[in-house]
Amino acid sequence: MTTPAYAAVDWGTSSFRLWLMDPAGRILAERRSGEGMTSAAKMGFPQVLESHLQAVEAPADLPVIICGMAGARQGWIEAGYVDVPALLPAVLSGAVEVPESNRRVHILPGLAQRAPEAPDVMRGEETQLLGAIGGSAPSGEQNVCMPGTHSKWVHLSGETVSGFSTYMTGELFEVASKHSVLAHSLADARSFDGDHPVFTAAVRAAFEAPQRLTNLLFTVRSGMLLAGLTSTDAAARLSGVLIGAELAGGLSSSDSQAAPIRLVASGRLRGLYEGAFAAVSLPFTTIDADEAVRAGLSAAARQILPLQLQRTT
Amino acid sequence: MTTPAYAAVDWGTSSFRLWLMDPAGRILAERRSGEGMTSAAKMGFPQVLESHLQAVEAPADLPVIICGMAGARQGWIEAGYVDVPALLPAVLSGAVEVPESNRRVHILPGLAQRAPEAPDVMRGEETQLLGAIGGSAPSGEQNVCMPGTHSKWVHLSGETVSGFSTYMTGELFEVASKHSVLAHSLADARSFDGDHPVFTAAVRAAFEAPQRLTNLLFTVRSGMLLAGLTSTDAAARLSGVLIGAELAGGLSSSDSQAAPIRLVASGRLRGLYEGAFAAVSLPFTTIDADEAVRAGLSAAARQILPLQLQRTT
Repeated sequence: MTTPAYAAVDWGTSSFRLWLMDPAGRILAERRSGEGMTSAAKMGFPQVLESHLQAVEAPADLPVIICGMAGARQGWIEAGYVDVPALLPAVLSGAVEVPESNRRVHILPGLAQRAPEAPDVMRGEETQLLGAIGGSAPSGEQNVCMPGTHSKWVHLSGETVSGFSTYMTGELFEVASKHSVLAHSLADARSFDGDHPVFTAAVRAAFEAPQRLTNLLFTVRSGMLLAGLTSTDAAARLSGVLIGAELAGGLSSSDSQAAPIRLVASGRLRGLYEGAFAAVSLPFTTIDADEAVRAGLSAAARQILPLQLQRTT
Repeated sequence: MTTPAYAAVDWGTSSFRLWLMDPAGRILAERRSGEGMTSAAKMGFPQVLESHLQAVEAPADLPVIICGMAGARQGWIEAGYVDVPALLPAVLSGAVEVPESNRRVHILPGLAQRAPEAPDVMRGEETQLLGAIGGSAPSGEQNVCMPGTHSKWVHLSGETVSGFSTYMTGELFEVASKHSVLAHSLADARSFDGDHPVFTAAVRAAFEAPQRLTNLLFTVRSGMLLAGLTSTDAAARLSGVLIGAELAGGLSSSDSQAAPIRLVASGRLRGLYEGAFAAVSLPFTTIDADEAVRAGLSAAARQILPLQLQRTT
């Protein structure tokens, strides 16, 4: 077996992913669990990390590069923020080393936008961005859409992050399905795809009239009462309305409208957002989010870890 | 004591209000409780009603007029819907009498908008509308804003309800404050008024850029992380963002924009919405919501109950 060079960790609020990497940035082993920041804050961050490293038989001195909420104030150790506008590679210079650790553990900082009228933060997506765009950014403008619980829309000029916005799309889907009057309508919903006609119609409705968002959300309920919408259709409508409004918001600033769109997504969200962009006839290109975060963590490893690694990669 | 002529009941999802009325429509006694549809469905609607009637010493044969969710499918007895466009007084002709009751109990129907692209329903607000506008409607267009858990925006042409939209403003405030990442920011919030500067600034921001609604919601969190927003400011911002987007949506249709605005509201919501309309320089007039629903129920009583009542009023 190739000797591992480092472990790359994407440590979010509710998920933990670890890849054991060789010096050339190839995956030797992978771990995924629900031990995100929320669980790890109770169980202990070093304990969670070591249990996964043991499971992949990592050497005791293997260094670790982490991005995401492990660097939040309520995380393992605060890794601060790099303020935008910022060059993407600047993220690497702000990494924090966990003190008194048995092995070298580095946590990457997030990005902060301190504009009083649009304060915003990200942790983890900056590393995805670095992997997705860093080193190969065209000189012009681009919009990057990174869907999730808290979707990020990033405006880039070359390698400079000029600004970004968080849309609470995924979280609003969750809380509305579980805790609002819409829960009755969604109770028996099954999975649906990005080309589901109720989903694409809802995307278009909200994209065209995003000011009606909280009204369109109610039509999930009234559509069931009056028009016999099924549970799955109701879920597709709720999702489509939230994503359609996100697209309208993400592209609403004047400098966003002409710039090309890059979607950074994986799995089910990738399918839904690809369906949504197609529904409103917006051209886009997709970059795999899992590959992007690994590439970003590998770029960080090359910069931060000992010279030995730099020479071999 | 004047002999009571009827009891007027506004029976919502989570609240119950009863007024004992004399033949001239004056209040003899009042009851308020949390025994809305949700509680009453478990306790029994007749039992809840009778307990309040006994508490105000109502005669055993006193008739009762009810509006609201008691007439929903999951309520006491389904009172159906009158379809829009509809003349406001048409609500009265659709009342349903509860069968096998010891006393006469009439439940008023709701309104339904069956347009496939904008299905919508209301129960209770149609009676408020009847009381607020009925009989004195000017011949032109008007927009009526009725704030609440599910705010209603009604477009009237004279006495005809031409269309309406529900905005989930109050419910989204609740679920976001209790069940989302914003809950951390709002935990210690105190009450605020409609002229609170953070509230009015948030109303303006969302009214001007409603397509950014779910992004502006996130700034409640990021504003606390980056700019030290207090809990009360965070609550004011959340409320202002949701109300500002509602105003933008409610006034977005082309026939709404020139029509005068009537606000039908009471208590705290009245203050917040008056502050919101002022913040975006929209002229409006206010009608008290409690008086409006009593006036609507009284109009129903005059039409539905025995001739004796009609003669004395």
